[in-house]
Order: sequence, then C-alpha cells, then structure tokens
Amino acid sequence: MNKPLIPALAQFVAATAGRNMTKAAYVAVSVGVLSMALLTVNSAYQTAHRWVDALLWACLAYFVFEWLVRLRHMARQRRLPVYLFSAAGVVDALGALAVPVALICGVEPRTAWLLGVLWGLKVVPGIPGLRQLRRVLVLESGPLFSVLVIFLMVVFLASVAEHVLERDVQPQTFGSVPAALWWAVVTLTTTGYGDVVPITPAGRMVAALVMISGLGVFGLWTGILATGFAAETRRDNFLRTWETVSKVPFFAALGPAAIADVTHMLRTMDLPARTTIIRKGAQGDCMYFIAAGEVEVDLPGKKVRLGEGAFFGEMALLGNNKRGASVSTTKVSRLLVLDLVDFRVLMARHPDLAATIDAEAQRRTLENK
Amino acid sequence: MNKPLIPALAQFVAATAGRNMTKAAYVAVSVGVLSMALLTVNSAYQTAHRWVDALLWACLAYFVFEWLVRLRHMARQRRLPVYLFSAAGVVDALGALAVPVALICGVEPRTAWLLGVLWGLKVVPGIPGLRQLRRVLVLESGPLFSVLVIFLMVVFLASVAEHVLERDVQPQTFGSVPAALWWAVVTLTTTGYGDVVPITPAGRMVAALVMISGLGVFGLWTGILATGFAAETRRDNFLRTWETVSKVPFFAALGPAAIADVTHMLRTMDLPARTTIIRKGAQGDCMYFIAAGEVEVDLPGKKVRLGEGAFFGEMALLGNNKRGASVSTTKVSRLLVLDLVDFRVLMARHPDLAATIDAEAQRRTLENK
Amino acid sequence: MNKPLIPALAQFVAATAGRNMTKAAYVAVSVGVLSMALLTVNSAYQTAHRWVDALLWACLAYFVFEWLVRLRHMARQRRLPVYLFSAAGVVDALGALAVPVALICGVEPRTAWLLGVLWGLKVVPGIPGLRQLRRVLVLESGPLFSVLVIFLMVVFLASVAEHVLERDVQPQTFGSVPAALWWAVVTLTTTGYGDVVPITPAGRMVAALVMISGLGVFGLWTGILATGFAAETRRDNFLRTWETVSKVPFFAALGPAAIADVTHMLRTMDLPARTTIIRKGAQGDCMYFIAAGEVEVDLPGKKVRLGEGAFFGEMALLGNNKRGASVSTTKVSRLLVLDLVDFRVLMARHPDLAATIDAEAQRRTLENK
Amino acid sequence: MNKPLIPALAQFVAATAGRNMTKAAYVAVSVGVLSMALLTVNSAYQTAHRWVDALLWACLAYFVFEWLVRLRHMARQRRLPVYLFSAAGVVDALGALAVPVALICGVEPRTAWLLGVLWGLKVVPGIPGLRQLRRVLVLESGPLFSVLVIFLMVVFLASVAEHVLERDVQPQTFGSVPAALWWAVVTLTTTGYGDVVPITPAGRMVAALVMISGLGVFGLWTGILATGFAAETRRDNFLRTWETVSKVPFFAALGPAAIADVTHMLRTMDLPARTTIIRKGAQGDCMYFIAAGEVEVDLPGKKVRLGEGAFFGEMALLGNNKRGASVSTTKVSRLLVLDLVDFRVLMARHPDLAATIDAEAQRRTLENK
Repeated sequence: MNKPLIPALAQFVAATAGRNMTKAAYVAVSVGVLSMALLTVNSAYQTAHRWVDALLWACLAYFVFEWLVRLRHMARQRRLPVYLFSAAGVVDALGALAVPVALICGVEPRTAWLLGVLWGLKVVPGIPGLRQLRRVLVLESGPLFSVLVIFLMVVFLASVAEHVLERDVQPQTFGSVPAALWWAVVTLTTTGYGDVVPITPAGRMVAALVMISGLGVFGLWTGILATGFAAETRRDNFLRTWETVSKVPFFAALGPAAIADVTHMLRTMDLPARTTIIRKGAQGDCMYFIAAGEVEVDLPGKKVRLGEGAFFGEMALLGNNKRGASVSTTKVSRLLVLDLVDFRVLMARHPDLAATIDAEAQRRTLENK
Repeated sequence: MNKPLIPALAQFVAATAGRNMTKAAYVAVSVGVLSMALLTVNSAYQTAHRWVDALLWACLAYFVFEWLVRLRHMARQRRLPVYLFSAAGVVDALGALAVPVALICGVEPRTAWLLGVLWGLKVVPGIPGLRQLRRVLVLESGPLFSVLVIFLMVVFLASVAEHVLERDVQPQTFGSVPAALWWAVVTLTTTGYGDVVPITPAGRMVAALVMISGLGVFGLWTGILATGFAAETRRDNFLRTWETVSKVPFFAALGPAAIADVTHMLRTMDLPARTTIIRKGAQGDCMYFIAAGEVEVDLPGKKVRLGEGAFFGEMALLGNNKRGASVSTTKVSRLLVLDLVDFRVLMARHPDLAATIDAEAQRRTLENK
Repeated sequence: MNKPLIPALAQFVAATAGRNMTKAAYVAVSVGVLSMALLTVNSAYQTAHRWVDALLWACLAYFVFEWLVRLRHMARQRRLPVYLFSAAGVVDALGALAVPVALICGVEPRTAWLLGVLWGLKVVPGIPGLRQLRRVLVLESGPLFSVLVIFLMVVFLASVAEHVLERDVQPQTFGSVPAALWWAVVTLTTTGYGDVVPITPAGRMVAALVMISGLGVFGLWTGILATGFAAETRRDNFLRTWETVSKVPFFAALGPAAIADVTHMLRTMDLPARTTIIRKGAQGDCMYFIAAGEVEVDLPGKKVRLGEGAFFGEMALLGNNKRGASVSTTKVSRLLVLDLVDFRVLMARHPDLAATIDAEAQRRTLENK
Repeated sequence: MNKPLIPALAQFVAATAGRNMTKAAYVAVSVGVLSMALLTVNSAYQTAHRWVDALLWACLAYFVFEWLVRLRHMARQRRLPVYLFSAAGVVDALGALAVPVALICGVEPRTAWLLGVLWGLKVVPGIPGLRQLRRVLVLESGPLFSVLVIFLMVVFLASVAEHVLERDVQPQTFGSVPAALWWAVVTLTTTGYGDVVPITPAGRMVAALVMISGLGVFGLWTGILATGFAAETRRDNFLRTWETVSKVPFFAALGPAAIADVTHMLRTMDLPARTTIIRKGAQGDCMYFIAAGEVEVDLPGKKVRLGEGAFFGEMALLGNNKRGASVSTTKVSRLLVLDLVDFRVLMARHPDLAATIDAEAQRRTLENK
C-alpha cells in the first residue's frame, strides 16, 4: 500500500490526509447518518436491509480508511500525538472505532450502528463561523454562567413550591421534587408540553411567575449573546481585512493611522472563478479593490483584465449610479469592498486617495469614448 | 384589443403594466386568497358555492389579464427574457398558469384552486423593508448557517439518545430515529406540542438539556440578527439621506467631509400632501429641511408657504420649546429631519450654519411681531 | 355642587381634574377590576354577591364623578373638544359610560359589568417608558411590518400545505384552510398547544420548517426592536439631560460644543426628599451635580447643606475610592450623575473643569481636617 | 470552644467567617439540596432513609455552625447589626433556622426539610456577573416595567374576551375570568400547555392576536435588556481596567486623556499560576502587559522571567503572526490584553509608545539570535 498504483488514488489519499472534509467525506457522512436513521425504521429495514447494511459498512470502511491515512500522514510529519489528542483526531478515532468496538463487545448490531451518529461530528470543524461563536461564548461566559445559575435557582425553588402545592391533588406528577423539576424545566424554557400542569389556584400563580421569569431569563441570555456577538463581528472583520489592506499598493502609501482607519471601512470578500461581481445596469452602491486574483471588465467591443492592486466600480459612485459594464472574476479572487457610505467619508478624509480615484475614473471615461 | 376603446381602460392597462401592485391587484389578491380559504370549508361552500366559484374565476381572469398585459409591455420594451426569469415574472406566471394547468391535468377542482395561495406571493416585492432584511440575511449568512448546523447537530444527537432511552417504554413514538427527530425539533424550537414526551428519568434529563440548548440556539440566532440589523439600518439611512442632503443648498456649501458628517445626523421623511407636520403648542424636539415639495405655515392672520431648500421648526429648538405655529404639506414632500440632539452638535461644530439659522429665526420673529 | 362645602373635597376635586391618576384612582381601578373578576366566579359571587355588587357600583360612581369633574374643568379652560377626542378623554368616557349603557341596553348584568375591564386602560398613560416604546414602534414600523407580512405569508403557505397533506388522515383538524390556519399560528409563534398536530411524515417535515421559521421570525423581530431601542434610549437620555445641564452654572461656562459633549456623559436622576444618595464607606464610582433641590452631607460633628449648582462625591473619584461621608436629600431633588468612566474622560478633555473640581476638593479636605 | 485545639480547625473557622462560600460550603449546599430532593422520592427514601436523614442533619449542622462562626466574627468587628440585615446575613439565618423552627412548630418532618431549598440561595452572592445583571435591571427598570404593564393589560383584556366568547362552550375552563387568566398567561408567554384551548372561531382569532402580541412583548423585553447589557459591559470593563492601567509604568507616562483612551482598548484578565498564555506556533492576535504577577518565556535553551510592568506577545503583531515562544504564568497574575485591532490604532495614535515597543522588540530579536 506504500506506493499507490494509480495517480488518482494517490491524489485522493493526499486530499483525505490534508483537508478536514473532502467531497467524499461529505457524501459518506450524509449517506452514513441517513442509513443509520433508516436502520431504525422497522418497515423500511425489513424491505431493504441488504442495501442499508451495505451502505453502513461502506461508510464505516471509508472512515476507517480516512483515519488510517491521516494517522500515517501525521506520523510522517511527527505530529501524531498532537493529532491524536486534538478535537479533530478524537472525532476521527470515534468515527472509525466506535461502531466496531461496540459490535465486538457484543452490543446488538442495530443498536451498535446508532453510534454512527458520531460521524456527523466530523462536519463541525468545517463550519465557517464556529470559531467566532466559540469566542463569544468564552468572552461572555461570566454573565452567561450567572444567568444559568439564576435559571437553576428558579427551577429549584419553583419545583419545591409546586411539589408542596400540588402533591395532594396530583401525586403522580408532583409527588416528588425530581418529578416537579421536570415540570419546572419544561415551563421555564416556555416549551410547555402540557403533560404536567398545575391545577390548584396557588400552583397556577407560581406557574405564571415561572413563565414570566422564563421570558426574563431568555431576554437576558439573548441580550448577552447579542452584545458579545456585535463586538466579535467588528473584531473579526478587522482582523481579516487588516492584512489584505496593507498588501494593496493603493492603501500602502497611507500611514499606519490611516490604514487602521481605512480597515474599519472595508470588508473582505472571497470569490471563486467565473463569478459575476457587477451586472451592467444594476444600482451601484460600492466599489472594489483587488487584493488577489484577477477580474475581467466586459466593455462594449473589448474585454479588459484588471489584476492585483487595481480597483473598479468607482464610476457608479462618482457619477450616475448605474453600473456601466459587467465585471466577473477569471480566477479565485479576494476583493476588498468599500460601501458607498464609507466611500464618501474616505474621499473626504483622504483627499490624495480621492484624487487618485478621480484621475483613474477620468482616464477610463476618455479611453472608453 | 390592441387599441383600447376607452381611455380609462388604457390607463388601467398602463398602470397594470408599469407598477407591481395596483389597488385592483391588492383587491384581487385579498379576494382570491379568502375565496380559496372559503372553498375548503364544506358548510360555507355548500351554501354559497356559486359565489365562491365566481369570485375565484374572476380573480384568475384578472391575474391572467395582468400577466398578458405585462408580457406585451415587456415585449415592446425588448425586456421579455429578463422579465420572464425575474422573481416578479415567475410569480406572475405562477399566478396566471398554476390553477389552469392543474385543472387541465385533471386535478380535482377543489384541490386545484388551492394553488391560488401562490397569488399571495405577488405582495412580497412591494414590502418596504424587504430589501433591508435580505441584505442582513446575506451578510450574516455565515454565522446564521453555523447556528443552523449546531441546531441540526443537537437535533440528531438528541433524537438518537432519546431513541435508545425510550424505545422500550414508548415504541410507538420513539421506536425509530425519524420518529424521535420529530420530538427533537418540536422540543429544540421550544414549541412543545406534548404529543411525544419522554417519560424515563434519563430521557427527561436529555430533554432538559435539549430545551436549554434551545434557548441558547435562539439567543445566538437573535444576537446575530440584531447585530446585522443595527449595521444595516445605519447604512440604509445614510444612503437614502446622502443624495437628498447634497441637493439642499443650505448644506451644499459645506465641504464633502462636513456633508458626510451632517448626513449621519439627518433622517429622510416622505410625506403625502395635506399632512400636518407640526401642531401648534406641541413639544418641539426637531427641525426640518425641505428637500422637495412645499409646506404651509399657519401663522396668525396669514399663511406662509416655504419651498425647496427652506427650513422650519428651528424656533422651538432655539428659544422656548413649544411650537409657535402649525405646519402642513401642500404637496407630496420629502423632508430632512434634524433631531434636537444632533441640532446641538451641528450648531457647535459648524458655526456658520448656526449663524444662518439664527439670522433666519430672528428675521422671522421680527416679521411675525 | 358648584361650591364644595369642605376644603378637603375641593382639593380632591382639583386633584382629580388636574392629574391623570390620583391615589384614589389607582385604588378604584384595582378594586373595580378585581371585583369584576370575582363576579365571574360563581362560588365566590354566590357567597358575597352583595359586597361585589356594592364595590362595583362604588367604582363606577367614582369613575362617573371623575369624568364629570374633568368635563367641567376642561369646559372652563375652553379645552373641552380637545379633551373629548384625546386618548385620555375617550378612556375616561368609556370608563364612565360603557357599563351603564350596556345595562340600559338590556345586556345581562353579569356580562355588562365585564366592560369594567376597560377601567384598566386608565393606568396606561401613566406608565413612564410608554412614550419611548411608542417612538421605537413608530420609527421601526417599516421593518416590523415586513416581518409581519413574512409571518402571514409563512402561515398561509404552511396551512394550505398541511391541509393538503393531512386532510385525509385528520379531517377534523386539517379539513379546511381556516382550521389549518389555527395550527399554523400556534406553531409559528412556538406556542404549540398540541391540540392539533400533524401525523403524516410529509406533514411533520413541513411543520419542522414552520417551527424553524418561527425562530427566524422571532429573531428578526427582536433584532429590529433591540436596534430601535438602543437608539431611542440614547436620544431620550440626551433630551432629558440637556436642559438640566445648561442650568448648572458649573457647566454653563463651557461653549455649546462642550455642553453637547458633556451631556452625553451625564444621566439625570430625580429623587424624593430624605433619600440617602451616598452611604459612608461604600465604593465610590460616580459624582453628582445638583440641578435642583438640596442635599445634606453628614460630616463628623457637623452637617453641611449643598444647594443648586453644587457638586459632591468627587473625592472618592480623585483619591481613595471609599465614600468619606453619607449624603442625603433634604427636599425633592434633581441630580446629574457622572460615572467614573466619563469623569476620567471629562477631566482629560476639559482641564478647566478639572481644576475647579480639584480646587474645591482640596478646600473641602482642608476644611474637614 | 473559644481557643480551638487544632490549627486546622482554627483555619477552617477563619475561612468560614471570612469568605462567603468555602469549598466545604459548596459541598454542603450540593449534598443538602440533593438529599432534600431524594427525601421526596418515596421509593428511594424507603430504601435509604437513614442515609438521607443523616446527610440532611449533617448539612444543617454545618450551616448552623457557619452562621454561629460568622455571628461571632461580626460581633468582634462590631458589624453585627449590619451583617444581620444584609442579604447574606438573612440568607445565612434562613439556612440555619428555617428547618429547625419548622420542626419545632410541629410541621411534618418530610415537609419541614423541604425548606432546605433555601440553602441554595447561599450560592447567589458568589456568582461573578450578578452585580452587573442587577445594575442592568435597575437602570432599565423604567422600560421593563412599562413592558410588564403592557403584558398585564393584554393578559386581562384577552382573558375577559375569551371568557365572553368561550364560556358557553367550555364552562369548565373559561367559565370565570380567573380561569381564563390562566389561559392568557400560558398563551402570552408562548408556553402553550394545551390544557386550555379556545375552540370557537372568534376565540381562536383572539388567541392568535395574543400569541403574536406575545412575540412582540418578548422582543421588546429582549431589546431593552440587550441595550442595557451592552452599555453595562462597556462600563464594567472600563472600571476594572482603569485602575490596573494607571499602575503599569509603560502607560503611566501618558497624560490622563490618553490613559482614558488606552483603557477603552484594554481588557483585564486574571490568571492562576502555571497557566499557559501563549502556545508556540499559534496565531498571534493580541499582546499582553503584566499588571501584577510574573510570567516565564520558554525560549530555546533558556527561560526568561518577566515581572510587573513588562509586556510580551508584541512580536507576533509586529512581524510574522506566529508566536515564537510559549509563555506561562509562574504565579497568580493580572494581565492587560491588547487586541490586534486596538494595537494598530494605539501604535498610530501614540508614536512614542510605538517607538518603545519597537525598540524592545528589536532588542529581544538581537538577544535571541
């Protein structure tokens, strides 16, 4: 197995080792989890148990293969221990080993395969905004924890109160504090199944207070998360944009104070090849700087290509606000977007940039006449 | 049909072709959707089936007419392909064709008419804030998608867990993973129908975690949307106001930096004719600049008209804060509103504007004595 | 009745005419609404129907009296038509007339008295933050309306879909579109009574989408309101503080630009007499300026009184951060609060203010030694 | 008991007197509340009633002991009355006395022990973010109270309306206004148990309005809390950071205006000993200033210790953005964190700080070569 026979396989192995989720991995996760769900539906399983079993074994085989490839890859790079104890390594190991271990331990097969739900966890590290969400949760963990304690406090006090008030009337559902706790959680989260409901007037008053507290807890929770998220979004955008800005020659001439200022106004946008950025005749409300890649301007009679460091879309902001030509990427490109709002402010604060953009716009107008 | 006999009809056709929703269209949509709903109520339909049928056919006829008029209009303007594949074009085509096609295909009439619910979609493009909402959803799609993936992850893990914990006790409702998924979605969204409820202690603990996660998912979701919405509102207001500001001579004298500054303070307001803007004796907490249209000041003994570029309402901000005279529009007008807060800041930052406003206020005071 | 015999009654009449809610009015509203609720409880009413009837008639008499007093008062001030058509006037008229008119029209008494719930509306104009809430709802009405339309769209599409999918299985609950609408509203608001629940797999998928949309609608709604509320709070605080600031001599010397700047840092606080503002030994994180009223500083061995324009609490911010003396109001007072955060910034930006405060603090330290 | 025999006991008594929650207290609260819950579960209690009783009495003994120790401690410091009427004092007294008093008063033991839920309240003062939450609730109490009144208004109007509409069809559940109130609260909080559900068409329309109002009330509530929380977080961070900043010599040279400016950019972080702050090879997105404590930099071949006033982590921000060395604390330390975003702005605004940091970074680079 050390030297794969076919180059395609070699490439497949390299892709599997190098990136977290290949297309094959997405397919395997989807098929695996769906088959696992199907396995539990008696009627479906009896009709097609061969297919379901085959798919499950195929998915398992893929995940074992993926794990082994990565183990070998990491071992070669002398990063094996780091990988084994990283989140991704643990998820890979679980995906490859959980079901076989359960089967070997003698767990009933249809139960053992349920561990296939762990395959779904492989998708998690690939989610784009996850790092951002985690930072918000970490930074705001203090207040969030406070709200959780308040939540538990209300749940406990309410369930003891309801236990006292309702135990004689409904011994089945409020007969013990743990039973009443179930009611309290269902009520405080405003889920309200209705399987356990207080019926005495005093019990209902306590319940009403719990429901209103539920709204309060919820509001605090949301307020904290909204606050943290707003700060994090600002920060994240700045970090991603900063590096790009300082590489665009147009901005590099500005001093560091002005660059920090400009960075707050720009937004990074990554685009695949052959994507239309501007459509002729549309409303123009932003201009673009090319940080990496290339775009093609579709002028009447000719096509102009613009490379790194160039800008486009400024004419709709300066003169009439209709786009004069369509623009699309020719390769994977990273653009910096400057909104009309910030364009005005930028032009006002940095007259030299304004002059450069004006000169270029005039040159282009003349050229296209 | 090429040359309509009556001018009123010609006007009606022109209005139908040119605007998305005429008054007739609003009536047709309302009547059509209500009749469709009535059609499904057996008792009502048996009593009045002739009326209901007649109304439905009338609405359908209107929508077919509307579609044909627009097709002709677009064909003349050589924009037919653009229209056909635009959102509005697809909705128009669906409204005109869905029911007839279903009837022709032999679908039972009372089922076919249910497709009339698609007529309701015609209202969508006319909603004022929709563009803003869509931009928020697009810009925040990264984090929103992350939350959605977390949501699905929790739903899947929870339903497998509950399936394992509850399948022996409640084979009917937790007997398969798809059945348990239903419970998980109902619980995580805190809807809580109560048709499926875990009853084992372990199952209830998992359910409690799911409910609390539901609050968390909800909070993140709201936090993201709130953040995006705040940014979008600021941006949207700036864009709408910018253009108007630069047309008011009073502000045009300022340099572009100051205009950007002023724009952040103003709010655009569009008013129909004969609307009272200021009521005599009310508290005054803002002043107005006329960007377009005309207003009438109702002074004791005479009525003064102010046109484009003029301002009013400044006297309550300078002296006593009661309005000295009622002001109302004489035609459709666009005003720029300057709040008291920003008035103070503006006066302080731009002494020349302050002087102009003071001089005008004194002139008016003298004149009215 | 024109010239009341006893001065107390005259005073009572004056208070009733002049203010929206007197203490008597609060009592009457509470007693009236509670009696009305009691009236509907058969067992309670049969036991104490004389008392309940007596209380209701007494409350009604009070509200009629209140209305007549106000009518006379307004007629004397020639503001009768304004009052009659104002919100307060309509509520007063409803409170006085609704029950008698219903009784005269022959409505069954126990039903007629239910109109007493309208008395509760009298409390509304007295709620402090209501004006603020209304402004938020008005300013954000555009986006809120869009969300409402999206809500209705989802409700309609979902109920037609469920009607089609479930009508054969559950003709009772999904047999007509209006019946399905009930389900859709209960689900989209995440209320989830559980009286109507889809049971087919396809129906449940649609329901899951509706529930997730419910979270989205909710998030948008909250995001819009949070954004509007943040802006409104800032504005409201500025307006209330502005006027007070310019009356404090300490600040009046600053130019208008600096006053606008300072106003953003201060918060207005209204206190009744004999309220302790500062407790000796507590952590000091703000200082106070007296805009109106008087305070008493409880120094060892003597009591010092400070009047309008004076400031206190600055020593904890300058030196050690423990309060050196207790301070309490002697009459109704209006204070301006300057937080530690803003104190630092203010001192840095306005060195002359810093010098004044420093000098006063030193003078006080010397004096108290 | 006045002079404890063993030093360990003396230490234990001192810890109990001085701090709100010792580790022993956390154990006692957890064990006590769990035992109390177990007591109410008949089957569990019959199996292990000796253990449960023993644990409960042990916990009670601990809380009585704790209370007595604190009473003695406070009496010695002449702060007994302050303590007795403080929140902590009342909670301590309740924890020590509630159960014994109930037992003495002849309450049935298994009911009396339920008062043990009050022990849980002891945890509350130790929650970190609680003071912040309380400030938000106090500052925003005006608008929150308005929303509560609106909530009650809707609840009352809705329940009277439903009582009228549904009383003939469902006399059991809507027969009186108090009964209908239960429905209204359950619906307006979107809990929706489903035990009481309107069935007439008119009743369902009112219910739909109530549910939509519920979303509105909820949105307002959340919006208010989010706004208040954002302001409070900013303020709280400033206060905690301010004091620390002015003690770092690096910043002390700046004038007060610049310090206020810098404080807004920094975030305080308290760390226990032996915590890794920077991991070699990780992405660097912030630098650190040591306000108190000491850190150890793990350079190749040697370990360098940095004390109070030093800074580290700046090299990843200046040059390549990978961390060049791991850094960990050697004792409990307080650090000031400067994010990359704010680093750029700071460097631009204060060139002298930039020069100092640059010089130090170069010195370090040379030294490590």
